[in-house]
Amino acid sequence: MTIAAVEFAKNNQARFVEELKDLLRIPSISTDPERAADVRRAAEFVAAELRRIGMENVKLIETSTPEIVLAPCDGPAQVVSAREGHPMVYADYLHAAPVNGKAATTVLVYGHYDVQPVEPLDEWLSPPFEPTERDGNIYARGAVDDKGQMWMHVKALESLFATNGGTLPINVRVIIEGEEEVGGEGIAAFVREHPDQLRADVALVSDTEMFAPDLPTLCVGLRGMIYTEIEARGARTDLHSGMYGGAAPNPHIALAQIIAQLKDSNGHISIPGFYDKVAAPTAAELAAWKTLPFDEEHYRETEVGSIKLTGEAGFSVLERTWARPTLEVHGIAGGFTGAGAKTVIPARALAKISMRLVPDQTPAESFALYKKYVESICPEGITLEVRLIHAGDPVVVSTDNPYVRAATEAMHTVFAKETVFVRGGGSIPIVGDFIRELGTPTLLMGFGLPDDNLHAPNEKFHIANFHRGIESIVRFLSSVAAI
Amino acid sequence: MTIAAVEFAKNNQARFVEELKDLLRIPSISTDPERAADVRRAAEFVAAELRRIGMENVKLIETSTPEIVLAPCDGPAQVVSAREGHPMVYADYLHAAPVNGKAATTVLVYGHYDVQPVEPLDEWLSPPFEPTERDGNIYARGAVDDKGQMWMHVKALESLFATNGGTLPINVRVIIEGEEEVGGEGIAAFVREHPDQLRADVALVSDTEMFAPDLPTLCVGLRGMIYTEIEARGARTDLHSGMYGGAAPNPHIALAQIIAQLKDSNGHISIPGFYDKVAAPTAAELAAWKTLPFDEEHYRETEVGSIKLTGEAGFSVLERTWARPTLEVHGIAGGFTGAGAKTVIPARALAKISMRLVPDQTPAESFALYKKYVESICPEGITLEVRLIHAGDPVVVSTDNPYVRAATEAMHTVFAKETVFVRGGGSIPIVGDFIRELGTPTLLMGFGLPDDNLHAPNEKFHIANFHRGIESIVRFLSSVAAI
Repeated sequence: MTIAAVEFAKNNQARFVEELKDLLRIPSISTDPERAADVRRAAEFVAAELRRIGMENVKLIETSTPEIVLAPCDGPAQVVSAREGHPMVYADYLHAAPVNGKAATTVLVYGHYDVQPVEPLDEWLSPPFEPTERDGNIYARGAVDDKGQMWMHVKALESLFATNGGTLPINVRVIIEGEEEVGGEGIAAFVREHPDQLRADVALVSDTEMFAPDLPTLCVGLRGMIYTEIEARGARTDLHSGMYGGAAPNPHIALAQIIAQLKDSNGHISIPGFYDKVAAPTAAELAAWKTLPFDEEHYRETEVGSIKLTGEAGFSVLERTWARPTLEVHGIAGGFTGAGAKTVIPARALAKISMRLVPDQTPAESFALYKKYVESICPEGITLEVRLIHAGDPVVVSTDNPYVRAATEAMHTVFAKETVFVRGGGSIPIVGDFIRELGTPTLLMGFGLPDDNLHAPNEKFHIANFHRGIESIVRFLSSVAAI
Repeated sequence: MTIAAVEFAKNNQARFVEELKDLLRIPSISTDPERAADVRRAAEFVAAELRRIGMENVKLIETSTPEIVLAPCDGPAQVVSAREGHPMVYADYLHAAPVNGKAATTVLVYGHYDVQPVEPLDEWLSPPFEPTERDGNIYARGAVDDKGQMWMHVKALESLFATNGGTLPINVRVIIEGEEEVGGEGIAAFVREHPDQLRADVALVSDTEMFAPDLPTLCVGLRGMIYTEIEARGARTDLHSGMYGGAAPNPHIALAQIIAQLKDSNGHISIPGFYDKVAAPTAAELAAWKTLPFDEEHYRETEVGSIKLTGEAGFSVLERTWARPTLEVHGIAGGFTGAGAKTVIPARALAKISMRLVPDQTPAESFALYKKYVESICPEGITLEVRLIHAGDPVVVSTDNPYVRAATEAMHTVFAKETVFVRGGGSIPIVGDFIRELGTPTLLMGFGLPDDNLHAPNEKFHIANFHRGIESIVRFLSSVAAI
């Protein structure tokens, strides 16, 4: 049966890729309110395919755009104003035949169909929503994050249905969300409110990357995050910088002064107490990372492309990006940024700033420390508003379970290499919810590559890995039915 | 004759205002390449009216968009890339009858017909290019800066022609430029290359403001400026802040660190050597400023509207805005500033930063000091480009000449008050050229008000001052013919 499903997948590779391209053509940018209809269209596309391949109870679950209230360690509770919600796609197949007289295992498959914005558009070599093949890759926004990886699961399930008499050898629940790139609060609320509807023995998530080409990888830790805005206001209205320069406060300079005090020149975050809860990786984990094939100079040159790497002194790149919190400024709005010269003292400026968190930091506590510190260093003449836009917990997942062994065996068959265990610097908020709310062991089995340009222009997915991913998932699902 | 011209102006007030509104409807934003046709239309509008009232040799003079080369005190010369040029409007009347057997005085009248951009558009109470009367004011972009004030001169000349048998009692050259708001390099080159065509005994400029309502004012000093851009580059392309946060340099944080080191928390500019050439105002000037009707708290509340005024400790607001250099950030481009959250480490960020200069600072030297300092504090991993966009000299004009006395007498007749002598914090680059290249005594006789919202939303011109300005100019021109 496994062999037949693997053969089916191999014989249908071209069609699988064409279907993925159709999905990639839908500009489902979840953070852009004007794309709401496209986001829904992507959900319906996924739902239709799940129905076609044989999944049952396929439905869109509307997210109710709840107000998220975070309780910081001091100060008043933070109410995060809610966005228009995007639907989740749910499907299941829950009557697999018992194995050895025991109910078959239930696997929860998670993915997301929403994508990041595409700016700066002029840096794309081919349009982000016209999937284009070059050098064995598909280039498109969402190619690897996460439409391509999510589609691997759909196609693995199709291959099993098609070669198993229209049934599956295992129980499966599928939940595909449309708000991962905007914080995933809709699915988080659903997990809290309806844990029974996602109950499973193990969760399988393909939204991470392989450590190197051909090196099968399980991700066992993710950073959390808080995404914030600081709005600074000075004068009542924009003022002429000649007439008022020297008397009126400048919100852009104020934000610069604040930002310059958030991290020191060594990349160490200056917020008092921010590192108090940071748990160091275990000695075994650190030792394992040292054996990974990683060259900092090669990484600098091929992936980052800057003249020098930066970050906290005394930590390796892998430690800095996997196991240390960081703080980044994403953009600063306000004032005049057009061509030419406008001599204005802007009345307001707004900085978009996020922090990545690591175990055992919590978003609520970290945001409270940040807000308190930012307000304490507010320059004279300026009023500030510090807002939390969204948040996600850091996680470390257990590797001590039979599902991990099944996954490494499946990938060993496909890649003929031992699996490495890494962490990821990014955040998949739902993973924390699965572990905390559902108590479900979670496997982060991703097939992206480090240079796939996630969240950046020219995002791509290596087509060979798309197919290897499908085979790995087929083999994994077949092998865990009896656990 | 003077009385007749004054009467003519009074009898035609309503028409004068309607004509001004027609000019204000033309969106002649000189910094916006897409408005080039509108800018030219405004030039043609002014030229047609000068021709109609009786001025001679009316023509548009194309500006040849020269490359401006500034030679800093060290380092290579700076070539400022040129914009598309906007035409100047020239007109003259050079055969006034001799007075007492002596050739009549020649007055050079200067103004500009271009305007600032209008952003933020949503803060305008009426559309910027639909002139609207409210509470005795005309609201529109350019109402006071400088279309309204330039139109006073045209209407004063019309009043004299109309009541003087189609002649003027004085020789007049009129030069109205279309690039004042973008640095006025076209007219500066013209002054250098064709000084004879602008030769005059005195220059009259109405592009400044009265110190207070009803208080006739001559401006005797202006700050200069350098308008710059700092472009910071980090990684080759935008990167995912989760995957690369902690290793990739962040150009926005780098710019914040640089900006935070440009001014200290007391508003003192930190660039080494920047204050070396700053000349203090004379004791007499400082003493005179102390007698001006100025209340810092009232200014803060009614004009600035911030919770506190800022700037260098130890200097009054008038000193800080008139006689001290300042540094302002106008905006920062790059990265993600839209609604919602995008987790990107931007590959580049660009800050628009200007400095106001005071005598005896020079733009070339000040820019060289700034550039050298900025490059010296460049954070690790970042490459910088520091560019000069445009520049203008600071000026102090002489008050020791009969034209100043004639102007104060003319305004005394109109306002029944003594004229005060002030400086302006803004920059009118051409004034320095008139003084330096032409050796022409220059009068800055402005009729704006401090709350006219120059360069900001809801720019206005007090209509009564428009008419008082016309009468003052009529009386001034009539009285200086025999000097």
